[in-house]
Amino acid sequence: MIQDKPDKGRRQNRKATEPPLFQGRRAPVADNPGHDQTGARIRVVIEGVQPEIDCGRFPAKRVVGDHVTVEADIFTDGHDALAARLLYRAEHQSEWRETAMEPLVNDRWRGVFQVTELTDYHYTVQAWVDRFMSWRQGFSKKVAAKQDVALELVEGAELVGEAARRATGTDAEMLAGYAAALRSSDADAGRKAVDDELAALMSTYSEHRWPAIYEKELRVAVDRQKAEFSSWYEMFPRSCAAEPGRHGTLQDYTARLPYVAEMGFDVLYVPPLHPIGRSFRKGKNGALTTSPDDVGSPWAIGSEEGGHKSIHPRLGTLADFKQLLAKANEHNIEIALDIAFQCTPDHSYVKEHPEWFRKRADGSIQYAENPPKKYQDIYPIDFETHDWQALWEELKSVMLFWCEQGVRIFRVDNPHTKAFRFWEWAIAEVKKDHPGTLFLAEAFTRPKVMYRLAKLGFSQSYTYFTWRNTKRELTQYFTELTRTEVAEFFRPNLWPNTPDILPEYLQYGGRPAFMARLILAAMLGANYGIYGPAFELAVNAPREPGSEEYLDSEKYQIKQWNIESPESLRGLIARVNRIRKANPALHRNHSLRFYPVDNEDIICFGKQTNDRNNVILVVVNLDPHHTQSGWVELELADLGLDPAQPFQMHDLLTDARYLWHGARNYLSLDPNVVPAHVFRVRHGLRREQDFDYFM
Amino acid sequence: MIQDKPDKGRRQNRKATEPPLFQGRRAPVADNPGHDQTGARIRVVIEGVQPEIDCGRFPAKRVVGDHVTVEADIFTDGHDALAARLLYRAEHQSEWRETAMEPLVNDRWRGVFQVTELTDYHYTVQAWVDRFMSWRQGFSKKVAAKQDVALELVEGAELVGEAARRATGTDAEMLAGYAAALRSSDADAGRKAVDDELAALMSTYSEHRWPAIYEKELRVAVDRQKAEFSSWYEMFPRSCAAEPGRHGTLQDYTARLPYVAEMGFDVLYVPPLHPIGRSFRKGKNGALTTSPDDVGSPWAIGSEEGGHKSIHPRLGTLADFKQLLAKANEHNIEIALDIAFQCTPDHSYVKEHPEWFRKRADGSIQYAENPPKKYQDIYPIDFETHDWQALWEELKSVMLFWCEQGVRIFRVDNPHTKAFRFWEWAIAEVKKDHPGTLFLAEAFTRPKVMYRLAKLGFSQSYTYFTWRNTKRELTQYFTELTRTEVAEFFRPNLWPNTPDILPEYLQYGGRPAFMARLILAAMLGANYGIYGPAFELAVNAPREPGSEEYLDSEKYQIKQWNIESPESLRGLIARVNRIRKANPALHRNHSLRFYPVDNEDIICFGKQTNDRNNVILVVVNLDPHHTQSGWVELELADLGLDPAQPFQMHDLLTDARYLWHGARNYLSLDPNVVPAHVFRVRHGLRREQDFDYFM
Repeated sequence: MIQDKPDKGRRQNRKATEPPLFQGRRAPVADNPGHDQTGARIRVVIEGVQPEIDCGRFPAKRVVGDHVTVEADIFTDGHDALAARLLYRAEHQSEWRETAMEPLVNDRWRGVFQVTELTDYHYTVQAWVDRFMSWRQGFSKKVAAKQDVALELVEGAELVGEAARRATGTDAEMLAGYAAALRSSDADAGRKAVDDELAALMSTYSEHRWPAIYEKELRVAVDRQKAEFSSWYEMFPRSCAAEPGRHGTLQDYTARLPYVAEMGFDVLYVPPLHPIGRSFRKGKNGALTTSPDDVGSPWAIGSEEGGHKSIHPRLGTLADFKQLLAKANEHNIEIALDIAFQCTPDHSYVKEHPEWFRKRADGSIQYAENPPKKYQDIYPIDFETHDWQALWEELKSVMLFWCEQGVRIFRVDNPHTKAFRFWEWAIAEVKKDHPGTLFLAEAFTRPKVMYRLAKLGFSQSYTYFTWRNTKRELTQYFTELTRTEVAEFFRPNLWPNTPDILPEYLQYGGRPAFMARLILAAMLGANYGIYGPAFELAVNAPREPGSEEYLDSEKYQIKQWNIESPESLRGLIARVNRIRKANPALHRNHSLRFYPVDNEDIICFGKQTNDRNNVILVVVNLDPHHTQSGWVELELADLGLDPAQPFQMHDLLTDARYLWHGARNYLSLDPNVVPAHVFRVRHGLRREQDFDYFM
Repeated sequence: MIQDKPDKGRRQNRKATEPPLFQGRRAPVADNPGHDQTGARIRVVIEGVQPEIDCGRFPAKRVVGDHVTVEADIFTDGHDALAARLLYRAEHQSEWRETAMEPLVNDRWRGVFQVTELTDYHYTVQAWVDRFMSWRQGFSKKVAAKQDVALELVEGAELVGEAARRATGTDAEMLAGYAAALRSSDADAGRKAVDDELAALMSTYSEHRWPAIYEKELRVAVDRQKAEFSSWYEMFPRSCAAEPGRHGTLQDYTARLPYVAEMGFDVLYVPPLHPIGRSFRKGKNGALTTSPDDVGSPWAIGSEEGGHKSIHPRLGTLADFKQLLAKANEHNIEIALDIAFQCTPDHSYVKEHPEWFRKRADGSIQYAENPPKKYQDIYPIDFETHDWQALWEELKSVMLFWCEQGVRIFRVDNPHTKAFRFWEWAIAEVKKDHPGTLFLAEAFTRPKVMYRLAKLGFSQSYTYFTWRNTKRELTQYFTELTRTEVAEFFRPNLWPNTPDILPEYLQYGGRPAFMARLILAAMLGANYGIYGPAFELAVNAPREPGSEEYLDSEKYQIKQWNIESPESLRGLIARVNRIRKANPALHRNHSLRFYPVDNEDIICFGKQTNDRNNVILVVVNLDPHHTQSGWVELELADLGLDPAQPFQMHDLLTDARYLWHGARNYLSLDPNVVPAHVFRVRHGLRREQDFDYFM
């Protein structure tokens, strides 16, 4: 159905009298009325093109290898037949490639192209009245009505003859043959006129007379596949020492890699590893007073020992960091670095660039505050500074510095408190030199701000998943994220916990709550992450009741984690990550569908690959305290299931297999065993491959 | 809340060091990142502006006197307070006017401006970080937290002092006074800092530092009020003769005006009154053979006697036509003329401009056909002609010719078979000379084509109402027309019948069907029309079973209508039109809401004015054969009703009054009496004005 071919050859064959398709790289603005000789006779309209984010101001997002489906409303006055094509090219290509668009229903057309390079692609749509197909349509009707078609054959022969002159080689010969046959009006002419081979040739050599060109050239930004599917683990280096009480180092951290790899994570996110300020350093549990042995928060960046391009001496050296990158690579783990653009009063920027900070009336520098809270250890950067250009360059150089060490993933701290325009520029600049770089936006803020950051270039985004616990909340939120235009630019990364957030559900729900939230995050989101070892050890004590801060938070002190605890969820995590890897349905979010269950404490949803070879159905008991049971109502057609046949539900968590019949099925989940099923739906029964252990 | 003031004075007061707001009339493109000194420091984002049709390619539509509500998503990084204003101007004005925008929820802002002239208006949005309000926010929090605010007062005094220098006259003095008070840090300073008067002054003299300007200048096209609210009546002049058998004239037609006026219509649509071709003239019931006395179809335009600018000699003269216009005017009726751009073989265009028609291979001109049907009496115009410019000018001159005679409404026949670009150009050209001109698109075609024509400039459009009979169909269709973006550009005009369409529902439903469809059209649509006298006489015989053509259609022959028939629905029609005129809720469609009824044959909907002083509730029995009853479920809050109080339902059709209680109410409708209630909802009881006869 879809044929890709370079446009170049075609264009050379076109007659000089036809209007040029494209002069250079930009699609000319063609959809305005006017008195120019060509434009006024353009009868076709192209509108409602999708994807198109904010009128084309921002690109849609895809990953390498994706097929981009483009749809448009295309129509003309009257009843003529149309032809349409999708034009596309990689950023660096000067020639358009093209693929045919096919009509769906209600004047909607669709075309598909594949993105194979790590760059932006451009696309637009072109359509024109297809004279031959219009003629063929009328001809067939007249033949059916047994009307005389002698004149029609002459006119058809003329159109075919014109196409023959546009064609070359055997195509030209074949077309000339058809033209002669039609002109002859012999017994066979009527059959030949509607020959599919002729239609195909005429489509290839279609006369693009007065083509309508969509007025915008749209873009799709292509990332590497990890942008779409990744499993994150956050861990503090200084808590990784083998011996209790010692300040962990990057070497200790590197030694923990096998632990992370065994759980199946492929991104290890390191909180800031820069020197920590001394002025107003926070003590344990965020206390305003410190004792000399308090280590401070890694997000209080900058001391006499260095700033954003330095490594905290107690963690080690740049060489240690490079060793970490190399070893992580052996485990197929990427290191994600934290980008937190803020400074302690001790940061060298404060002395060297005082104009980058806001000055108070008394000459002091404005520290961060949210009255009554004061964060005197943090100076926010003033993006309204007159010296913004130097500032932007310096901040960019921080990211480039770490890129040069080999980092290709950044987790950006509070991007919503820095200027939007800076991010759009900086992300583009970094990707110019290092195209595969990914940026995760830690913007726990208002929805439109979160979406804007995603449009500006952030590859992934933290979400409200952290606080969405009920079936209604989860269904509504994930429907918005996966079933609306948001899915075109916003890639959710789901975190059940972070060093800043121990949600109430985890505080009160015990181990079952951790299991349920792990499975929800890992199955609802193709990208997800946990902050460990606090997560797998089900640490659930808050600083005080009503607080989401961890008690004795690792942000302010070194922790000693008993990672070998028999209570650890690491085995379940490993299994969940293996299930994710083995099932391509879970590598994307676009197929997510929720199914009704007659119990508000049970949520059921499915994901599947486009070819339906991999269909996953997840059922989770959201009540961490009681066994819940209920009837699930599936849409069998949607899952590719035959309502007349039983089907096998293979629970990938327990390896149990169930035989289900029809749309309604009963189940019961005890949160103290496993609060979820992760079923692979097996379509047929008694087929030998169903009995292979799948992973 | 909304203060309108010209921007000019403000601008003169602004300091030279601030960036210019607007240079000339166009809003500069400001929402792109870049390295220019001003743009990079713009921290505010403006997106999601509504109304905005197809990225601003087309204007939204309003009528004179309307308030245009503009909304936008406006936000910045961090937590600063913002200010936003809506800028607007009439097409001919070079200076923007402005009005403040107010925040709603979730970063959504709203502003309103009124359109008072018959022209396009332009609008855009501007927003900036409000330094004073940001300061005030922090100041108040610190005061509440009992923190020291001495430094804050100094900084506040500085901001107020700057504003004082921007202000003039007493405003400047007052601001200077506030600045001094704050600077003094005396006991009263804290109270003065948060004074509302100060806030208002600071808002007036707000420093627009690095304002974000929405990147598009959007448009709203303003028509006269009839575009929004009109009652149409279609009638053939040649059937208006007083004596049976005679060919009616424009004078006869003029004599029928009181009949039309009594029914309460304000637009009288005249089918084409041009000379009718002789070649291939159609006989009675569309027969291919004619007898010499066959009068032909008025849509077969052009003969030796003239074309689109001529009047059929048997109808009269241009003087008669002008007399018709003058007399109609006395009855507050406007004449709508038919624009049917097609020609008979006898039209002078065919000889004078053969290049405006498509030529076949044998040199003949292509007539209209839809195999197996042939319309040899009609030559469609070829909008792909190389001579398109002369063609466009000539067609425009047809409309201008009739405008010069005094016509200001055109009903355009089959606009969807003519080039879109022509219409956009021609409508704009006509309105340039005659701004009040209205165009009704008779495009019974695919939805996207109908919507496109509306976007291009048609003021009103025929709809699928003609074929929407069930509650589900009507609810779905009118929800789409009134509750989606379609309402911004598409003004429905509802016709239960036309000379081309006698729907099956009318064929089989008898008088009750005509009553129900009349009430539905007149109440669902602020614009509606009927083709009479066939409608009020409940003519329901089709040409043959399964056909929607009238038997002995007036399109092909002269009819003699017994308009004085006692069976006529003219009395009901007059009452319905009086109800429409007296109730402003029915002059618009935007408030249309459907309410559930537990009977699929009963439909219930309401309309109301924004101030809820006029609330109409319509209930129609869609079953023309049987009495139907059921429970209506109202949303009382939506109707402005107190659930604890009874309310009076005043049926404006019968003048009966009912006392209803609560949301659920029972009713029963006998189609053979009146198949509908048209209630005016009376909020209070026992108030003297409820007992006045309302019209």
